[in-house]
Amino acid sequence: MKETYEEKINRRLGVKQKIISVAAGREKADLVLKNARYLNVFSNEFLEGDIAVANGLIAGIGEYEGKIEIDVNGKLVLPGFIDAHIHLESSMVVPSEFAKAVIAHGTTTVITDPHEIANVMGLDGIEYMIEATKDLPIDVHFMLPSCVPATPFDESGAELGYKDIDSYFEHKKVLGLAEMMNYVGVINGDGDVVSKIVASQAHHKKIDGHAPELSGNELNAYIAAGVYSDHECSTFENALEKLRKGQFIMIREGTAAHNLKALLPLLSQQYYSRCMFATDDKHPSDLLNGGHIDYIVKQALKSGADPICTLKAATHHAARYFLLNNKGAIAPGYLADMVIIDDLSDFNIEMVFKRGKTIFDGDVKNFDAPIIDKTIAQKCHDTFHLDEVTPKIFAVNCKLGLIGLVGGELLTRNLGTADKIDIENDILKIACIERHKNTNHIGVGYVKGYSLKSGAVATSIAHDSHNIIAVGCGDSDLAVAVNAIRNSKGGIAVVENGEIKALLELPIAGLMSDEPLEVVNEKLENAKAEAYRLGADKKIDPFMTLSFLSLPVIPSLRITTKGVFDVENCKPVE
Amino acid sequence: MKETYEEKINRRLGVKQKIISVAAGREKADLVLKNARYLNVFSNEFLEGDIAVANGLIAGIGEYEGKIEIDVNGKLVLPGFIDAHIHLESSMVVPSEFAKAVIAHGTTTVITDPHEIANVMGLDGIEYMIEATKDLPIDVHFMLPSCVPATPFDESGAELGYKDIDSYFEHKKVLGLAEMMNYVGVINGDGDVVSKIVASQAHHKKIDGHAPELSGNELNAYIAAGVYSDHECSTFENALEKLRKGQFIMIREGTAAHNLKALLPLLSQQYYSRCMFATDDKHPSDLLNGGHIDYIVKQALKSGADPICTLKAATHHAARYFLLNNKGAIAPGYLADMVIIDDLSDFNIEMVFKRGKTIFDGDVKNFDAPIIDKTIAQKCHDTFHLDEVTPKIFAVNCKLGLIGLVGGELLTRNLGTADKIDIENDILKIACIERHKNTNHIGVGYVKGYSLKSGAVATSIAHDSHNIIAVGCGDSDLAVAVNAIRNSKGGIAVVENGEIKALLELPIAGLMSDEPLEVVNEKLENAKAEAYRLGADKKIDPFMTLSFLSLPVIPSLRITTKGVFDVENCKPVE
Repeated sequence: MKETYEEKINRRLGVKQKIISVAAGREKADLVLKNARYLNVFSNEFLEGDIAVANGLIAGIGEYEGKIEIDVNGKLVLPGFIDAHIHLESSMVVPSEFAKAVIAHGTTTVITDPHEIANVMGLDGIEYMIEATKDLPIDVHFMLPSCVPATPFDESGAELGYKDIDSYFEHKKVLGLAEMMNYVGVINGDGDVVSKIVASQAHHKKIDGHAPELSGNELNAYIAAGVYSDHECSTFENALEKLRKGQFIMIREGTAAHNLKALLPLLSQQYYSRCMFATDDKHPSDLLNGGHIDYIVKQALKSGADPICTLKAATHHAARYFLLNNKGAIAPGYLADMVIIDDLSDFNIEMVFKRGKTIFDGDVKNFDAPIIDKTIAQKCHDTFHLDEVTPKIFAVNCKLGLIGLVGGELLTRNLGTADKIDIENDILKIACIERHKNTNHIGVGYVKGYSLKSGAVATSIAHDSHNIIAVGCGDSDLAVAVNAIRNSKGGIAVVENGEIKALLELPIAGLMSDEPLEVVNEKLENAKAEAYRLGADKKIDPFMTLSFLSLPVIPSLRITTKGVFDVENCKPVE
Repeated sequence: MKETYEEKINRRLGVKQKIISVAAGREKADLVLKNARYLNVFSNEFLEGDIAVANGLIAGIGEYEGKIEIDVNGKLVLPGFIDAHIHLESSMVVPSEFAKAVIAHGTTTVITDPHEIANVMGLDGIEYMIEATKDLPIDVHFMLPSCVPATPFDESGAELGYKDIDSYFEHKKVLGLAEMMNYVGVINGDGDVVSKIVASQAHHKKIDGHAPELSGNELNAYIAAGVYSDHECSTFENALEKLRKGQFIMIREGTAAHNLKALLPLLSQQYYSRCMFATDDKHPSDLLNGGHIDYIVKQALKSGADPICTLKAATHHAARYFLLNNKGAIAPGYLADMVIIDDLSDFNIEMVFKRGKTIFDGDVKNFDAPIIDKTIAQKCHDTFHLDEVTPKIFAVNCKLGLIGLVGGELLTRNLGTADKIDIENDILKIACIERHKNTNHIGVGYVKGYSLKSGAVATSIAHDSHNIIAVGCGDSDLAVAVNAIRNSKGGIAVVENGEIKALLELPIAGLMSDEPLEVVNEKLENAKAEAYRLGADKKIDPFMTLSFLSLPVIPSLRITTKGVFDVENCKPVE
């Protein structure tokens, strides 16, 4: 039976009265961190006191007694870290596995954009992510994907207009509209694009931006349209212009992009109040070996950034931007999301609390993964709709575009055309195979710089539509690699002489595994080793490089389901 | 016919497309301030550029052309000033008259708490204020009165529980719950009191505080309950404790209270981001001769406060606290609420813009006062329900409490009792007459320190219930003064020898005049002169002092409709 408004108020009143009573000292707290040194984000200093927790909230700081008391002994207590922008799918594991990894790094809140899965499954994908993040020991908030498909040249699994996503704005986990990548559409006042911004504003929600290098009056137009943040700043100059014009700056330091070094000057008195941290993408090995927001903090502190500026960017500012009213501070009434570290120079995470519960004390505390609605779970595991392929679909006997890889960069060069594989000259065949709607669409071309000497590599992580992208030395191995992915309903495959040498299955929407992070990491690293063994250039990540080769917005050439695409001239290579 | 959601989105889309087009430079702006030097609240510096306005919003800053161009010639452009907390009734004029006065001082937004009129008229009073502030050239937002009546000892015109005000939280002008004066009730977890906070939070709205000198665990309890701000800080120490515990500090500098000097240290890098300005009360002469938020800014700057810290407290921070998303900055997408001043040292207001329209350029531009719904207008003019009084109702032949005024302070002393008027020894009769419900309740007592030598003074501004309070040298003049107020349906009267020497009529709820501010001011100053002529002590404001003598929360003695009340012992003086 649905709770009436009055019942709701009365229920909350009871909770509130308990907190008031604890704060006033009339009853014992659930938990007290005794003798804490804590970051005061309001007065910008470290202060001392007992931190009292009741019903998951901080009741007060002062002198308190608790049913449980932990003597912090002068160690540093910080608000839980917040990742302001991530695509959880990038971890290749389900959100509960992601959570296990980041809890140990002091993260208590992430804001995710389910852009990848939405391109595969539309609203069902968003629904899956909401279900898969329910009641985790970290809070996962959502921004609704703004660009599905990413471009008109994409063949994605779904299309989402403003009316499709509109009802989700009122979901309690949804904070707004995710990175508006189509900045050209915004600047040109494109009705379909701008409507999404207008709708998000009508729901009093945020709109995140994505506009690398945009500046001048075009940037004014983009911001005036209602885009409140940007995480695509790679130079201080561009970040400062965006900040001056009112955007919040998400300083991004993740697996694919590293902007902290360039943006360090933002972490100073003058600018930091509009800055926060984000990772955007975090791959398995980076999560296991690198860290999360704590890693960014450590890097910033090592580079000499002011500790209070840095820590507020890691906690308080994302909460303010996203209007997470009771997050990002250690003060009465705030959620007891807290991290205890040894000291600022070593920055070892010793304990993590979420709503007053210990979730890490050297080990991550066990928790149950959310139970996913069966229909949704089934849909996630059934996103590949293509017949088994044969070698002959790759056989195209004419000149096709030749994509030139630039080691370590996402940009490619336009190398004209080629008409056959030439291993000696490092000319391999590349293909993009539509896999959502059994259209038999396939785009074929050539690539230089990937450097396989034999075999083939394929992946179903292929931005942003997540069709299958494959590169190889021969049509036969290409077919085996593509079929391996098809048959495991997603993944990454390395094939040689008709034999699958390595396979990471990603059966959830072709993007995520059902297995633990450690297993996924091992399979992925093994596959990477196999790809390198087959000759893949060590300057590139053999899978991440492939994944971006299908995104028809990054110059110069890309491979789509319709063939090689010339981004600068916005047309297929003929 | 009600607009559908789709129609709303389409309408807003059209507006947005125009702004985008202007920002991008494709079409001329409605207005451009050429060669402006402006405060950038994000990068904390003064920058230069052309400020382009379209549809009332700032489209961009850069190089722009406009249909109207104003060469600012390097003068300083600031965001419009915001008063974070005021009771508009304190101006004794209708809101349109108040607006006229403050526009010339650069105010473009005020947040009002209609606490006074709500104590007289309940929801009808709130409704009147909403109507009377509709479409003014300044924006008036509302906080809902939290304490009507102010105390259980009051006899007010209305009682408002959480259910009474609940539906107003969703009104677009309402930002939350106004100053929670009953901090004792909050700290004790009183259900009726805390429910109002819980309800405001359930609507995702703010809750303002009012807790002079509260500190320690009791302050923790008050803040943990959900009280987000305080405007009752009179010492830096108390303000700092509140700020550290998470409250926003409204630095109050108005007619009745002057806290700026004590709180100046807040206007520094370390603390200022959580601080804003408020006036609380502004009386006519202070509005006409002093100024408004600009006055506070000038005082702060003269005292050496940092200009950027000070200006952000006057503009940006109130907007952030109240989540007025598009206010408080000069940047793309923000409302074109702007003030042009000559320079920081003279700080003369030269022009004021509201949503891109000139509302002051040396003269306040004419505007129409809002038309008030007839029923509400009538109700406002009919709030006095008491019979004509006769001298004999003041005749009480026994010992009654003697209130000792302390020149210039709101506190009083308990001087024991008296049993008759004794002009030589400055013992006058004081009375509080219930006027809302014709109960014939009257409380009588004695007062020392007011110092009339003859006649009587009465006022219907009597916090917080706004009954009639009167002080005098004899029962006969007391009756004439009370009847003068009754007959003009509210006001301030000075009487001598049965003759009305001065009268300011306040027929709107007994609190506000229908006349222009200048007329009200003249009548009020005339009445004050008459009161002084009759002997009123020059160290006190003869009306403001009276107005606070009925508020049974300030120590030591007060006069209520039930007699002299001992605040410290929380009981009547017997």
